[in-house]
Amino acid sequence: MAYYVGIDLGGTNIKTGVVDSEGNLINKIKIKTHAERTMEEIIHDMGQTALDVIKDAGLEVSDISAIGIGSPGTPDNLSGVLVYSSNLPFNMAPMRKLIREVVDLPVYIDNDANCAAMAEAVAGAAKGTKDSVTITLGTGVGAGVIVNGRIYSGFNQAGSEFGHTVLVSGGIQCKCGRKGCFEQYASASALARMTKEAADEDPNSLLTEVIAEQGAPNAKAAFIAMRRGDKKAEEVIDKYTDYLADGLANAINTFMPEVLVVGGGVCNEGDPLLIPMREKTMSRPYFGPGVPKTEIRLAQMGNDAGIVGAAMMGMTCVLDNIDGK
Amino acid sequence: MAYYVGIDLGGTNIKTGVVDSEGNLINKIKIKTHAERTMEEIIHDMGQTALDVIKDAGLEVSDISAIGIGSPGTPDNLSGVLVYSSNLPFNMAPMRKLIREVVDLPVYIDNDANCAAMAEAVAGAAKGTKDSVTITLGTGVGAGVIVNGRIYSGFNQAGSEFGHTVLVSGGIQCKCGRKGCFEQYASASALARMTKEAADEDPNSLLTEVIAEQGAPNAKAAFIAMRRGDKKAEEVIDKYTDYLADGLANAINTFMPEVLVVGGGVCNEGDPLLIPMREKTMSRPYFGPGVPKTEIRLAQMGNDAGIVGAAMMGMTCVLDNIDGK
Repeated sequence: MAYYVGIDLGGTNIKTGVVDSEGNLINKIKIKTHAERTMEEIIHDMGQTALDVIKDAGLEVSDISAIGIGSPGTPDNLSGVLVYSSNLPFNMAPMRKLIREVVDLPVYIDNDANCAAMAEAVAGAAKGTKDSVTITLGTGVGAGVIVNGRIYSGFNQAGSEFGHTVLVSGGIQCKCGRKGCFEQYASASALARMTKEAADEDPNSLLTEVIAEQGAPNAKAAFIAMRRGDKKAEEVIDKYTDYLADGLANAINTFMPEVLVVGGGVCNEGDPLLIPMREKTMSRPYFGPGVPKTEIRLAQMGNDAGIVGAAMMGMTCVLDNIDGK
Repeated sequence: MAYYVGIDLGGTNIKTGVVDSEGNLINKIKIKTHAERTMEEIIHDMGQTALDVIKDAGLEVSDISAIGIGSPGTPDNLSGVLVYSSNLPFNMAPMRKLIREVVDLPVYIDNDANCAAMAEAVAGAAKGTKDSVTITLGTGVGAGVIVNGRIYSGFNQAGSEFGHTVLVSGGIQCKCGRKGCFEQYASASALARMTKEAADEDPNSLLTEVIAEQGAPNAKAAFIAMRRGDKKAEEVIDKYTDYLADGLANAINTFMPEVLVVGGGVCNEGDPLLIPMREKTMSRPYFGPGVPKTEIRLAQMGNDAGIVGAAMMGMTCVLDNIDGK
């Protein structure tokens, strides 16, 4: 059995684990990123966590085939440089070189959303398929695309930014500079905004009360108010799932994946979200008669998606003979 | 040198040619489709045109490595069956089997928009690149995606229907069943519709006069009126290029192709279309600092794109050892 180290680099935590070639997580550790430190210090610690998990797993460095890193921003796997990251002090960071100063293994880097998609494709909701798309509904909308078992991210490794495709031309201003991005209508933050707008429109709805209970207009409030029978909350969920389904159907028409994986905290709401999301989405794509349909499934990999996906991304790079040194 | 036959099947014409492995068209013939005939008669004629062009080129059937067919609708290249076509009597048509009754060669089928993209990638505007997207602005909006030198069309070969991604949620009804598809805002038909709407709004603009000259509100009228100094026409082009750029930027954010090829008759308008299209599109995608940018180029393959692309699609299937018998 071959083993790989996966490192999930985030603005808050660095999570590192040993993963086998079937996507099983053997063990993991988590340290704080302390993003206020220098790039060199942070990357040195990432290398050290790799040494630590390998030892904790009872393995030697020579038992490991490669290290895969999932990072926010735009990593360039050819040069091993993190070209750009909005959340970390990592512009043009020579990640491969610095990690290899600590651990003598091939090092591969890719985007965190792409790694999450790889985890679902190898060991999660899209296991057994060659073409899948994973969309994560969080503060933003993340997207990762797997084509023929490999991460697809374009010639410059900057795609697929499906969250930043315009769904409502001329709509709400997005932080990316465009107006009306999918992310502005389908993220958890978007649902919180729609909830607040609805409460402002109709202050007598239960939404106002639930927002006060929650302390803020979050992505849960509308579901709670709807369960208590509030009509205005039902309208909010109806509007949110309409936009969400429009964007998911766009992803299907664009990629025609065998499985479309949907994840993120908002999916924990269960059927009140999932039933309309599935029904509305599947009524919209352009399947011709007799054409097999995409399946929509919930993400399964949870908090380990980043580690497992980064490790499996590293594995595909080894299989494809990409130079990681 | 290896040779391939490409067949471009359309509702009006069947165009067939011999193409070498570098995408050079050696010779071609064109016959009427006569779509009112039976599927068997049409496909038999397609096979016969293949025999004819091979002979006209001074070659033998044994000199040809494969036949590639570009067809409207959803072909299934694994089974060799045209699953569905909206314009031809070809539902579940066993195309490979019937062609092979006439010519004993491997037969491969794919969507016509995908074949056009393959032609641009091998011999046209995206020559030398591995990842490109070709978008054709015609009656509809066609899209073909090339990933790592191969057509990408999803697990069911029904993608990429990028023309049927929603750009204006809740917008104009599309024939695909959705509302607000890119096709409804960026096709030549969409420009004609916007032109008519503007003329109705402001009957004293030059648009009314030009539409009368043209005999109908077509995709040329607004450009003609703008060249004569009409402000209302300028507004129409501004609005059209805004939507077009939003959709093209969506394609870039989604696929991050090295080259985005744009084609279709409306591109013949030249700079009055192309300058705002390029400027608006390139200001919108989510390139981070230091990330290489997609180039936008005009389609080069013209009327031969279908033949050359079908033949080159056949070539990639031979290279990938796909069974065409």
